[in-house]
Amino acid sequence: MDDLQQTGVTRAIARFAVESRWQSIPAAVRHEAKRALLNWAGCALGGCRDESVDTALAVLSECSGRPQATLFGRDERTDILSAAALNGLSSNILDFDDTHLRTVIHPTVPVAAALCALAERVPVTGAQLLHAFILGVEVECRIGNAISPEHYDAGWHITATCGVFGAAAACAKLLGLDPQRTAWALGIAANQAAGTTGAHGSMTKSWNMASAARNGLLAALLAARGFTSTEQGLEGERGFTRVLAQRRDLDEITRGLGASWELARNTYKPYPCGIVAHPVIDGCLALRGEDRVAADSIERIELRVHPLVRMLMGNAVPTSGLEAKLSVQHCAAAAFLHGQVGVREFTDACVNDPAVAALRARVILAEDAAMPKEAAGVAVRLQDGSALERYVPHATGSLERPMSDAALARKFHVLAEWGWPQCDASAFLALAWSLDDLTDAGEFVRAAAPHP
Amino acid sequence: MDDLQQTGVTRAIARFAVESRWQSIPAAVRHEAKRALLNWAGCALGGCRDESVDTALAVLSECSGRPQATLFGRDERTDILSAAALNGLSSNILDFDDTHLRTVIHPTVPVAAALCALAERVPVTGAQLLHAFILGVEVECRIGNAISPEHYDAGWHITATCGVFGAAAACAKLLGLDPQRTAWALGIAANQAAGTTGAHGSMTKSWNMASAARNGLLAALLAARGFTSTEQGLEGERGFTRVLAQRRDLDEITRGLGASWELARNTYKPYPCGIVAHPVIDGCLALRGEDRVAADSIERIELRVHPLVRMLMGNAVPTSGLEAKLSVQHCAAAAFLHGQVGVREFTDACVNDPAVAALRARVILAEDAAMPKEAAGVAVRLQDGSALERYVPHATGSLERPMSDAALARKFHVLAEWGWPQCDASAFLALAWSLDDLTDAGEFVRAAAPHP
Repeated sequence: MDDLQQTGVTRAIARFAVESRWQSIPAAVRHEAKRALLNWAGCALGGCRDESVDTALAVLSECSGRPQATLFGRDERTDILSAAALNGLSSNILDFDDTHLRTVIHPTVPVAAALCALAERVPVTGAQLLHAFILGVEVECRIGNAISPEHYDAGWHITATCGVFGAAAACAKLLGLDPQRTAWALGIAANQAAGTTGAHGSMTKSWNMASAARNGLLAALLAARGFTSTEQGLEGERGFTRVLAQRRDLDEITRGLGASWELARNTYKPYPCGIVAHPVIDGCLALRGEDRVAADSIERIELRVHPLVRMLMGNAVPTSGLEAKLSVQHCAAAAFLHGQVGVREFTDACVNDPAVAALRARVILAEDAAMPKEAAGVAVRLQDGSALERYVPHATGSLERPMSDAALARKFHVLAEWGWPQCDASAFLALAWSLDDLTDAGEFVRAAAPHP
Repeated sequence: MDDLQQTGVTRAIARFAVESRWQSIPAAVRHEAKRALLNWAGCALGGCRDESVDTALAVLSECSGRPQATLFGRDERTDILSAAALNGLSSNILDFDDTHLRTVIHPTVPVAAALCALAERVPVTGAQLLHAFILGVEVECRIGNAISPEHYDAGWHITATCGVFGAAAACAKLLGLDPQRTAWALGIAANQAAGTTGAHGSMTKSWNMASAARNGLLAALLAARGFTSTEQGLEGERGFTRVLAQRRDLDEITRGLGASWELARNTYKPYPCGIVAHPVIDGCLALRGEDRVAADSIERIELRVHPLVRMLMGNAVPTSGLEAKLSVQHCAAAAFLHGQVGVREFTDACVNDPAVAALRARVILAEDAAMPKEAAGVAVRLQDGSALERYVPHATGSLERPMSDAALARKFHVLAEWGWPQCDASAFLALAWSLDDLTDAGEFVRAAAPHP
């Protein structure tokens, strides 16, 4: 490790990515990569008709003249940089993508959106795509580990700021860059790292991730042609971890490289909203489903939550679907009224439904610093004076209660049906599960959209 | 002012930009805008054949299919977003562009590169272009004022981080956006603000400014179509001045808006390198020219400088032209050997010339905390034991000793000759000085490149 630190962590992780061999990736990690890509593809299909995607596509298509790359779920084709951005946007806009819990990075969006676009220009096998993806997530999450939790707490949108490195590293791997150019790609990425959490609740939040995907891909393309940069983008005196982080533990980036894999710590969401609300939703659904609490019998709902929940999701009066994704009050009300918290519960129509608004107004947020972040308590007081309570130590989809392959497949079906009803979901699932055997990874990407 | 602060500074500055009228811009500021654009155009022509531009163009042209916009000095055409980036790159790569001394922002590159690209899609008059440019610089520099000097000192590349706001505001003005959408454009810009000084000395340094131009233009195009964002991108709890700055004085953004103009404080460089070396170069050229110090008679050169000079330009052994632009030692050696410090003195060939390297090795940097940043002392000890000294309180090109219109015109001629020898420089100069009378600003832009 002394040696690695001396070389510099940027060069060290670049060398690791260059030298990594597919054969050395554990089977469980390979499988997790397929789960992550399947989950991501579903999110992209589910979000592909969102107004934000239409808007951004209208802008970019006026500039993009080359129909090089697939937009998930859509007829249109764009250049690969625009496709990376647009698939990044559509796969995050529903807030349904995956989460690396330690950092709260949503790891797949920036890396997969960049890689899938590139895989349509550079012929690669499914295994090469999976391998580059695994390495990209590794780089992204290790950088996040090195600066967490202070970086996120300071207001940085960590998926965007670390995601651009993941996208750059993954694309550098797919392009077969040498260690110096891979380090340059990371140096260019360090200088494109951007995005705060200050625009959450608007389309710009997902645009941060779109930009991370696009800029990471661009960084690799530039470095591949010899566009020079620093080789100390992470650790340099004015490098990423110095300028954008209050504290850093660079050893987190290199310790145990190749022996442990961050993708093994990935989780998938059963509900399309901010993850800190998930134990609350589990509790509400259990009270409704198992304890038969009817929405119209509720006097008030009291949520006992970690203080982070108010900070991230304390919007008591959301006015749009995007805002409601960061409103734990809305999540609770929707759960009791609709018995499910899916994409439909975050449409503007649902958010502005007077019945939902009325119940939302009865939700009380009780902060409890002793409550673990991953847990929540839900107490309902009914109009007849009785009370019921649920404590949820770990939400569905957490590492302790992971979504099964079958559950992920069901989620894919629902999302494909929502965004692209003509999708042959079963055929796509078969492709996704056999990605490591595909001789052309582009086949997977092209199957995600109608053929013109 | 209370009222402005209550509204929020992002909304306040957006409203100012929307409501500003060309008639209310003082004549001196209008003239300064023409000087700035002329200086900028010369820099773009001078840099247009740089290897970095060839490289970035090769990457972007594989994605860009629409020949919408002019690349200064070049035959190729690209889409407007790519043109904003590439003209931003070529106009900064020589390190010859302008400087807002209080913030060390190089104000014109991001704003002008974005605007000139847009002016080829949206028909506007020369006066409209100048007006939007003046407002963009105002927004960019006022935001810089609010967070200086801490933001730059922390390692942020302030021209990039503030430039993206200037580009967004200017393009929003040209597109005629309303106050809300202008604020959204600034919100999107806040989430694209990126770039550290850690890659200085490589191509990535200028790429930061290219990205600022491109992303600012994109922010305005997105907002124009209703892509939502925060309206508190600057002041919000997790807004730009909170997350990317250690200290902020938001009053700097709104105080005296419309009464004072930051463009009036703009300066232009006579030498294509980091500005803190300019008094040193003046001193060396005076010793050579007026005191007839011959390079081969020099025992050693001692530079008395503010400590910032070592931090920014203390590279004693540069190995490339780009590195030499941040080497005050190289600047001094080149001045004595060549009697001028122009573009040629920052080619790789000059930097690696053994005679230059030998004299460079005789330069001693003496930090003096009492030395004003804008001044320098140069002392030479000759081999015959004698010594000579010059003290330069203000460099050529500073606010105290500004470059005249004629000097700027000469600089343009030299730069055009360097990058695009076929340029009809006199005709272009005539267009530039009459920009406020042009009915089609695109005429100015198109004159900056060969007609295919």
